[in-house]
Amino acid sequence: MSATTAKRLNTQYLSAERVAEIVRRKGLANCIAGVASYIRQDFLRWNDFDKCARVASHSDVGVIELMPVSDARSYAFKYVNGHPSNHRFNLPTVMAFGVLADVETGTPDLVSELTLTTAIRTAAMSAVAARALAREDVRSMALIGNGAQSEFQALAFHHLLGVEVFHLFDVDRSATRKLAANLERMGLAWRAFDSVREAVRGCDIVTTVTADKTNATILTADMIEPGMHINAVGGDCPGKTELHADVLKRGPVFCEFEPQSRIEGDMQQMPADFPVTELWQVLAGRIEGRTSAAQVTIFDSVGFALEDYSALRYMRDLALELGMAERLSLIPTLEDPKNLFGFIDADAFVDAALGRLKAEAL
Amino acid sequence: MSATTAKRLNTQYLSAERVAEIVRRKGLANCIAGVASYIRQDFLRWNDFDKCARVASHSDVGVIELMPVSDARSYAFKYVNGHPSNHRFNLPTVMAFGVLADVETGTPDLVSELTLTTAIRTAAMSAVAARALAREDVRSMALIGNGAQSEFQALAFHHLLGVEVFHLFDVDRSATRKLAANLERMGLAWRAFDSVREAVRGCDIVTTVTADKTNATILTADMIEPGMHINAVGGDCPGKTELHADVLKRGPVFCEFEPQSRIEGDMQQMPADFPVTELWQVLAGRIEGRTSAAQVTIFDSVGFALEDYSALRYMRDLALELGMAERLSLIPTLEDPKNLFGFIDADAFVDAALGRLKAEAL
Repeated sequence: MSATTAKRLNTQYLSAERVAEIVRRKGLANCIAGVASYIRQDFLRWNDFDKCARVASHSDVGVIELMPVSDARSYAFKYVNGHPSNHRFNLPTVMAFGVLADVETGTPDLVSELTLTTAIRTAAMSAVAARALAREDVRSMALIGNGAQSEFQALAFHHLLGVEVFHLFDVDRSATRKLAANLERMGLAWRAFDSVREAVRGCDIVTTVTADKTNATILTADMIEPGMHINAVGGDCPGKTELHADVLKRGPVFCEFEPQSRIEGDMQQMPADFPVTELWQVLAGRIEGRTSAAQVTIFDSVGFALEDYSALRYMRDLALELGMAERLSLIPTLEDPKNLFGFIDADAFVDAALGRLKAEAL
Repeated sequence: MSATTAKRLNTQYLSAERVAEIVRRKGLANCIAGVASYIRQDFLRWNDFDKCARVASHSDVGVIELMPVSDARSYAFKYVNGHPSNHRFNLPTVMAFGVLADVETGTPDLVSELTLTTAIRTAAMSAVAARALAREDVRSMALIGNGAQSEFQALAFHHLLGVEVFHLFDVDRSATRKLAANLERMGLAWRAFDSVREAVRGCDIVTTVTADKTNATILTADMIEPGMHINAVGGDCPGKTELHADVLKRGPVFCEFEPQSRIEGDMQQMPADFPVTELWQVLAGRIEGRTSAAQVTIFDSVGFALEDYSALRYMRDLALELGMAERLSLIPTLEDPKNLFGFIDADAFVDAALGRLKAEAL
């Protein structure tokens, strides 16, 4: 018991720097592949999870969300914000951290950064979906939106789907220059374009990962070509969309967790009875994904708590493998669990508590 | 800007040991009084807050909850579990930690233990309610349930309401012995009883703070005497009640946040139209509390996120005053917020990422 307790009350801690170091040691591409396989495993046991739409707190300038999910063994949640104007403060648009806890006792087992990890899991999720939905012979991908997510998407699609060339567009040319430089250093081929229309022309996959909290129409139906797979990542909260509604009519639409996606995805533009398929059904072989090479497939991704559960599991396992976890003391260790008072008690203190109080006015 | 950024990305961290040290230095009674005054301030601006019922994940053995709340400046949430059988693992029934974040940017400003702090804020909340609802001449309080919360309740009611003697009862006699010993050391008068009925007889205030996750009837209507104030703390989630339904008919019932209390409080036993008053209305002088010395008043407390917001604010301010906050690095500090990749990038790494991947099978 006491051994159990000791173990349980040592909450593991993964700082942003520590996760970056872990990723450097393991290799980013390996981490994306590893998280992708954890996500796949967890999506295949979809019905083991207690799922709910995330809890969002909206302000004029952004949103702060809590994303809980659990199975019989582990509970996970992510804290994540979305503040498109954060560059004004030289802060990331999206910042996150998360927790894994033990369902049997409620003890938090892991507190980890999730800003970097979210970029990895989002790219991994996109790749898992594309492997199930895109053609097998994909070679080119348009990357519309060249911000913080874009390198991770490129690396995921290069390594997990075999994409060889990336067509880049962003309204912010400095973002495109940044992405191009990073792709160069990874030895990945790219071409920059002056418009979305030019960037997507002839591509096998179109990934939209823009950040504005507006109902934008980055993609219109006339840009969509037969056989394309649309990986729509940036439209992920009410009032934040990237695809013109007609794009969603060009082919079957797939999502993560339907109740959340209907509120937050690009499909928020469609009626409540608009047909949509949860991706896990395709992964489990219950429903067909792409049915022909000429078909257009659309993954309307918003990011679901289960992906963070998978990513937290992966990072915890990897930190263990590399022996790199630190510790936090978030929970007091008590000799007698009913004597919480004893945790602060001390002869000197008790008198002090009363003494000081008399000295101060309430 | 960069100064701002640096400041914002240094998340303050208060470990369980650090909070215990802060409480020892300031004095527990002063901390309870301080949190009580912060709670009062925040309840008086009730309508500034974006409120929602907590998000609970129930299992056979317990519950894990997230409790978010925010105003225009700060966002707070608490992670808290409730596992009545945790003593089997020598773990507390309730363990918690929480976060304060900046609404303007979504940056987490503080991560703090909340196990100890929750005991302090719960006692503070009970005292704030009792000062508004109980008679002015209270001298005795029955403490039904002598677990982790009980010393904090006793200290709060002694210092903030002038209670001089405590009547103790718990089905677990060792818990009563523990509480009695702690009260002795604080110089507080107590008497132990063999039944709830004997313990509450003649008391001005009855505090129930039991832990079983069952519909218990700790208090029945025939035990209630004219002029009593009932401070019902332990009935705080669906299927977990302490008062017989008839007790709630003995006088006006007050709660924290009505939508949550109707689900989680002892009032979950009553019909949806059962009359109940939110405490802030009494604190704000909009609605009368107690109207006569003979009246029975009932505070059906469940614990609301705003109390944790207040407690987190207090602990942050106190840590600042005492210069005792530590730091966490949960969020990566980026030179270019659109270059998250750059946070892990390194010449060696890029080749390694590709190299290692080729070496491993996907």
